[in-house]
Amino acid sequence: MRPTITAFATSPDGGMGLARDMRVRWALEEVSQPYDVRLVTFAEMKEPAHLARQPFGQIPTYEEGSLTLFETGSIILHLGLTRPGLLPDDPDARARAITWLICALSTIEPPVIEREGFELTEADKPWFHARLPLLDDKVRTRLGSLSAALGSADWLEGEFSAGDLMMIEVLLRLEDPSLPGADLLHEFPTLAAYADRGRARPAFQRAFAAQKAVADAIREKASSS
Amino acid sequence: MRPTITAFATSPDGGMGLARDMRVRWALEEVSQPYDVRLVTFAEMKEPAHLARQPFGQIPTYEEGSLTLFETGSIILHLGLTRPGLLPDDPDARARAITWLICALSTIEPPVIEREGFELTEADKPWFHARLPLLDDKVRTRLGSLSAALGSADWLEGEFSAGDLMMIEVLLRLEDPSLPGADLLHEFPTLAAYADRGRARPAFQRAFAAQKAVADAIREKASSS
Repeated sequence: MRPTITAFATSPDGGMGLARDMRVRWALEEVSQPYDVRLVTFAEMKEPAHLARQPFGQIPTYEEGSLTLFETGSIILHLGLTRPGLLPDDPDARARAITWLICALSTIEPPVIEREGFELTEADKPWFHARLPLLDDKVRTRLGSLSAALGSADWLEGEFSAGDLMMIEVLLRLEDPSLPGADLLHEFPTLAAYADRGRARPAFQRAFAAQKAVADAIREKASSS
Repeated sequence: MRPTITAFATSPDGGMGLARDMRVRWALEEVSQPYDVRLVTFAEMKEPAHLARQPFGQIPTYEEGSLTLFETGSIILHLGLTRPGLLPDDPDARARAITWLICALSTIEPPVIEREGFELTEADKPWFHARLPLLDDKVRTRLGSLSAALGSADWLEGEFSAGDLMMIEVLLRLEDPSLPGADLLHEFPTLAAYADRGRARPAFQRAFAAQKAVADAIREKASSS
């Protein structure tokens, strides 16, 4: 059964890989699972048909026969539990890899997103410059601990896993060139190199190209019309 | 194999159930799994022995034979995947229940924690009263969608699951009486009733009593010395 995911008809980042369908595309490529994509406009994301798939009106979603999922963490976990390539076979190693996936979503991403949202929506507020360092430091604290945990290893738990995929996707948000603040990822060379290892994987490259092609097609259409 | 979890030797909330070991205790009670507790001081949480279990110096952790886990989401998922009582047997229903667990951690908790952290650490800042409504509204947006998704159902996906456990634990943070802001949970009667259904479960009650007993023992010792 070939699954269908949803993605932005018009991605806010113009195909730079920051939209969350990138995470699911990467996972699908890692397990060599072909898939279809249904593009949804911002208006369609708030309509009942999409809200039945995704109660918060976001992308991506995942449909496979009778199953409809949302939340990138859940979709990637589903792919990892049903197909080889994203989670170790050994039960202990598998539980540890899942721990890192949850850690990426629950411990690392929240301060990253809090800072990102602040930069995007409050840069014109009188408190912006006084508050930004507080948010930078919250991210630094987490990255420092993560860097120590990774140490000199290539991946967080033995071989590359869904935990690394999710962690690297979160780290790459820190490189968003549209954000005015410091490039926190490169303050931690261990983590910057780790993210580069993820980005060098053929599955990442294929997923990145696929999501960028959507944005490129829109740009081409706009420039030719 | 009887697992061991870690918990605060001195819980900041004095046993009101907001420390994250409550989530794991509740899950252990739902699957009728006896467990041991190792209490750790704030100093011990930053020492190498604990950082080897939890790289971010937090609680809880979970040890069971050769397996050591952190992240409440991962621990509860492990309990659900290895013992009956927290996840449906049907594969689709199981994947949907896991989706709600991840949703609690990745979609609902971040704005709840962002607002909580702001209330706890920036109440004396000149921007506090101007910013708080922005954070309240981010929480309200999520709760509105969640309330619509729950509708008139008792639980998010058929029977009570690990997804409900995690969602209700996140919602109960909004009731923290030490926070100065609005009681956002009770603006959504559907969700307040849902949280009450969770709190009424015998497994919740046993877990709550167990974590409160730790704080009560400390208070008794302090008052008698």
